[in-house]
Amino acid sequence: METLLLDTDDVDANAAMAELVPAVRDAFAAYERGDAQMPAKSYIDLPQYNGDFRSMPAYLSTDSWDAAGIKWVNAHPDNPDSFDLPTVMGTMVYSDPKNAYPLSIMDGTVLTMKRTGAAAAVATDALAVPDADSLGIVGAGVQSYTQLEAISQVRDIETVVVSDLREERITRFIERFGDEFDVRAGSISEAGHCDVLSTVTPVEEPIVGPDDLGPHTHVNAMGADAAGKHELADEILLAAKLVIDDYAQTTHSGEINVPWSAGVLDDDDLYGELGEIVTGQKAGRTETDDVTVFDSTGLAIQDVAAAHVVYEHAREKDNGTSFDLLGV
Amino acid sequence: METLLLDTDDVDANAAMAELVPAVRDAFAAYERGDAQMPAKSYIDLPQYNGDFRSMPAYLSTDSWDAAGIKWVNAHPDNPDSFDLPTVMGTMVYSDPKNAYPLSIMDGTVLTMKRTGAAAAVATDALAVPDADSLGIVGAGVQSYTQLEAISQVRDIETVVVSDLREERITRFIERFGDEFDVRAGSISEAGHCDVLSTVTPVEEPIVGPDDLGPHTHVNAMGADAAGKHELADEILLAAKLVIDDYAQTTHSGEINVPWSAGVLDDDDLYGELGEIVTGQKAGRTETDDVTVFDSTGLAIQDVAAAHVVYEHAREKDNGTSFDLLGV
Repeated sequence: METLLLDTDDVDANAAMAELVPAVRDAFAAYERGDAQMPAKSYIDLPQYNGDFRSMPAYLSTDSWDAAGIKWVNAHPDNPDSFDLPTVMGTMVYSDPKNAYPLSIMDGTVLTMKRTGAAAAVATDALAVPDADSLGIVGAGVQSYTQLEAISQVRDIETVVVSDLREERITRFIERFGDEFDVRAGSISEAGHCDVLSTVTPVEEPIVGPDDLGPHTHVNAMGADAAGKHELADEILLAAKLVIDDYAQTTHSGEINVPWSAGVLDDDDLYGELGEIVTGQKAGRTETDDVTVFDSTGLAIQDVAAAHVVYEHAREKDNGTSFDLLGV
Repeated sequence: METLLLDTDDVDANAAMAELVPAVRDAFAAYERGDAQMPAKSYIDLPQYNGDFRSMPAYLSTDSWDAAGIKWVNAHPDNPDSFDLPTVMGTMVYSDPKNAYPLSIMDGTVLTMKRTGAAAAVATDALAVPDADSLGIVGAGVQSYTQLEAISQVRDIETVVVSDLREERITRFIERFGDEFDVRAGSISEAGHCDVLSTVTPVEEPIVGPDDLGPHTHVNAMGADAAGKHELADEILLAAKLVIDDYAQTTHSGEINVPWSAGVLDDDDLYGELGEIVTGQKAGRTETDDVTVFDSTGLAIQDVAAAHVVYEHAREKDNGTSFDLLGV
């Protein structure tokens, strides 16, 4: 048997957002229903290299498919300067749950960006006003592109306001999306007064205050991925309808981890998990809601769901490179 | 940059036992010294398929090299009958700890067999009588071959006694090793009266009793890898100088797990971990010792150490297939 190797371009070509968003929604639902297994992310911390490795295994079963796999991913912030490599790189092994054969090994870096955008879209669909047509982006780095790609699948986005300290990032973003959307540069507050705001920065001190948001803005807080990081002022989190992806992960390393550790925010401030909304156990946005916030840390089930979509498409289109790794 | 793909044959060709044994010894020493990180093995249990997945990440640093990686491995006992696939298959991602680039992706199945043999050799070197020249093997399946390959690196093995219920397994073993060693079939007791015995079976009820061993036999108990499995009678474990590979893993799923759970065996019955012996903190065999037992569950640090040897050799010899998985 052969394992299908899917490089960056193969993953990109086979990760259509129109399919990733429902697959990731199905993954959240499966997790909520108890039809998924996701052992805690485990970390290897290497302070001597200012980096870490994370292993993210998962299995999930939906009505029409099940899938298993593991993503091995890192964060080495010195990589761009020291090695001309990205800070984050991922490798995904996608396996057949029935017999564990590794069906595919794929680039997990693009996969991470895509599945992260898809989660923001699932949350936006549940929490943004129905007629949302503007999206603000704070932080126009590599993770910002999939925010627009994905969120425009669930709302008819026309206007995009991009805020970033680095001019060249804004220019690049506008070059990429200027033909499809009305994209312009703006302040954090201008971005935050859009119907939907995605924050995608690595900051450790909040950069978005309560006055920076519109009365009904839905915020996807995507940036925080480690203890000590947060992007939104505590007042926003305390006042908002606050939805998280996973209790263990968000309290440990999500947007809420800092006020949580400080005792400023507790269980009573959490509305629920995204899975509870997509399974209909809890309502999404209602007419009385003001600001809503989704705290995303990124779950292994998202990776497995995205890998499923990529693998099935690549097979159909005969993409990728077959390789007999195991000789069985 | 490119990732080096190493298939089964590549791994086999580059996993010389003469180097694996010292590398695995170094790994045990690093772990004991605190120069390794090995998050707990995490399991995904799939009773609907009578199988499970295990993720085994690790980092370790020795005097001359450091290495990181993860093995994603399964146990699906129905595979041979249902899918014509092995029960156990592994995929190893071997990464540069400095920047996390995946240097190599390799077959983890052969790697597992090799590093398991190497651990038995490290233990045998520490615990068998110095002039040991006979090796008994109980269970002549795929894992038994590397026992002889590895143990013959640390003792001048001349005679091998193989015990197995299936005649064809014994025939195959003798065909493989008959030219190098004096190999013959024998009973469990005949195997157990060799200077060294390796038990490599999946049994759930002990098959080796106290009378089956010689007065100074060193036993490598390799078979038990899950709760409920054990190969040796409790009396043997209670009387022996009992060395384990890792406290958490052996009490959970090693040879000692059954008497441990029953309260028959406790901390006082454990002599120590193999790492304590290879670092010189505790003595190996002394002149007053009788039977010694090594309880091996298999550690992620062994996989990483073995992957290091395989990768470095493959690079030197220009083996394997380069593939640009990440496009960086």
